[in-house]
Amino acid sequence: MNAPVVKKVLVDSLELRGAVAALFEAVGVSSTHADEIAEVVVFADMRGVETHGVQFTPRYVRGIMRGHLNATPNLRVVHRRGSTAVLDADNGLGFLSTRRAMKEAIVIATEMGSASVAVRNSNHFGPAAFYPMMALESGMIGHVTTDGPPHTVVWGSKKPMLSNDPVAWAFPTPSGPPIVLDMAFTGVKEKIRLAAQRGGTIPADWAVGPDGSPTTDPKVALEGYLLPIAQHKGSGLIVTNEILCGALAGALFSFEVSPALVMGADHHDSWKCGHFVQVLDPGAFGDRPTFMRRIGELATALRGAPKAEGVSRIYLPGEMEAELSAERLKNGLPLAVTTLEALDVVARNAGAPVPSATIKIREMT
Amino acid sequence: MNAPVVKKVLVDSLELRGAVAALFEAVGVSSTHADEIAEVVVFADMRGVETHGVQFTPRYVRGIMRGHLNATPNLRVVHRRGSTAVLDADNGLGFLSTRRAMKEAIVIATEMGSASVAVRNSNHFGPAAFYPMMALESGMIGHVTTDGPPHTVVWGSKKPMLSNDPVAWAFPTPSGPPIVLDMAFTGVKEKIRLAAQRGGTIPADWAVGPDGSPTTDPKVALEGYLLPIAQHKGSGLIVTNEILCGALAGALFSFEVSPALVMGADHHDSWKCGHFVQVLDPGAFGDRPTFMRRIGELATALRGAPKAEGVSRIYLPGEMEAELSAERLKNGLPLAVTTLEALDVVARNAGAPVPSATIKIREMT
Repeated sequence: MNAPVVKKVLVDSLELRGAVAALFEAVGVSSTHADEIAEVVVFADMRGVETHGVQFTPRYVRGIMRGHLNATPNLRVVHRRGSTAVLDADNGLGFLSTRRAMKEAIVIATEMGSASVAVRNSNHFGPAAFYPMMALESGMIGHVTTDGPPHTVVWGSKKPMLSNDPVAWAFPTPSGPPIVLDMAFTGVKEKIRLAAQRGGTIPADWAVGPDGSPTTDPKVALEGYLLPIAQHKGSGLIVTNEILCGALAGALFSFEVSPALVMGADHHDSWKCGHFVQVLDPGAFGDRPTFMRRIGELATALRGAPKAEGVSRIYLPGEMEAELSAERLKNGLPLAVTTLEALDVVARNAGAPVPSATIKIREMT
Repeated sequence: MNAPVVKKVLVDSLELRGAVAALFEAVGVSSTHADEIAEVVVFADMRGVETHGVQFTPRYVRGIMRGHLNATPNLRVVHRRGSTAVLDADNGLGFLSTRRAMKEAIVIATEMGSASVAVRNSNHFGPAAFYPMMALESGMIGHVTTDGPPHTVVWGSKKPMLSNDPVAWAFPTPSGPPIVLDMAFTGVKEKIRLAAQRGGTIPADWAVGPDGSPTTDPKVALEGYLLPIAQHKGSGLIVTNEILCGALAGALFSFEVSPALVMGADHHDSWKCGHFVQVLDPGAFGDRPTFMRRIGELATALRGAPKAEGVSRIYLPGEMEAELSAERLKNGLPLAVTTLEALDVVARNAGAPVPSATIKIREMT
């Protein structure tokens, strides 16, 4: 256990959200859009998904400053039929277009029972779970997937041409947190990094080295790329999402998206990737009270299932994240000092208020 | 390599289909329904998915003879709004209700751009790929998922309460076979059986023994049950499908479905499980020629990706199955002698023509 300790401080999530929004406003984003982005960014950190949270903000802001991303996108519905729509994101951040797509989908599903909305010409949308969770307020089911820069392979290849194409689903429940699945179709690079720091090995099916050969050496794996989960199965699920987000949405496939960011660039350049959202209204498939009662029975049965050895509690998808988020809302959000410093640097460059000077910072106890 | 050799003979797939249909007709199924079932059953064998093919037919027929399954289901649309519908399968085989649900979905999607149709009160539907492939003739995208008897766990539990909840997707392509993904969210028991016969070990994350502890001993694994793919990820994807097929469709969850068949019963008893199908019309999201060109570009790029060591060809989902099916249509379908004998036995019980007497049988060369 010699993983380096990341020094963290405690901040208030609403203050952090304000500071993040101010950064986007400083580079020309409208206050409404800036707040829409900041809400999703901080949502990720609150749920423990720091990889998709505030730490990315400096790269988004530099992407706008350098003209790669459109600060003032004109979001337009370019196709509309029955239960479907296509939205052009106008090269703005995916946070904005996916929120808008989900709003359209909820309106459509209210009338049609279900809705499928594709987004083209878009960019990173951060934590996938946020968008399907928008449908929960209306008692509906939400779903989203996306493509993005390539960092994994189609099964049988040694060249990364596919994104990890995450999916998220959100389902309302009669009590307790909603059921929220948010997952990618590759493993997590962070776990390989941890194994490298600890000097251990990794399972042979997690990653390959730069030459495309399977490796159990985490250091070699970090020079290479992640494999899809469950071999050809994860690869097949990714290909499915590539078709929905690329061909159907009229956006670029992952192998056509700029890999700069995943190769370590300090800014987010233009991706022109696609997203695909769906909403289902349980009220169209029967009566809502019965649906809610049944989903409650499923949750109760699964939470109460006999536990495997060493397991103290069975968590449904999204339950850990909901509890962590509630705890952080109450006690403060731990933020890496390096992340705060990076926000300060980009704030000075952008002429925005410097976050460490505008938000209260507490030491972790 | 001491796996036992299964003796097989060659039969003509159309003749076999006729013999299977005759079996269902003999137990009271209409000739239209009998042919609809037989077509899907033989489709599975043609594509090399023998686990879901003709070998199951005796169990279906006995299920009907014993009154567990409805031979003459009255398929009814019980809810209908906008782009959605719910079909009651009336305790008939899932082959019939899922074909009907997909037909409804294609009609709805033609007008609405997308369709979501749920099926309740249903039973086994055999090979999932058949149903989304029905949408291909209309140039559309098809999708299906289902629940069924429990044989895997929610992550953290040691009691099988979930089905492997397979999904299938079918996408049209401008040339070559369509892209067809058909997969379950557990591994394949057959591979564990093979490892047991060969005296080898299995990876620790494939299965657990009867006490719920992970095992690398395939013999212990065969006494226990399969684990979801990719640990909590596969489990989460299964929970998603349970909600769609159970709560949304108004059907039983897998932990409520009779496990008799997966426990080795010789007949299919009543499941009352659910299915969920979706159809997307690419023409609603843009122009179809562009969609087809783009999906062709994706297929070409992925097939031509640099190959990993030891890989001679990159297959897209469904490509192997399409080639095998074409070869078997031309040269004959290999059928296990034990399967043919089992068909003969149930034919005599049901008073149907005996398959081995009505279809031409050739020795494998």
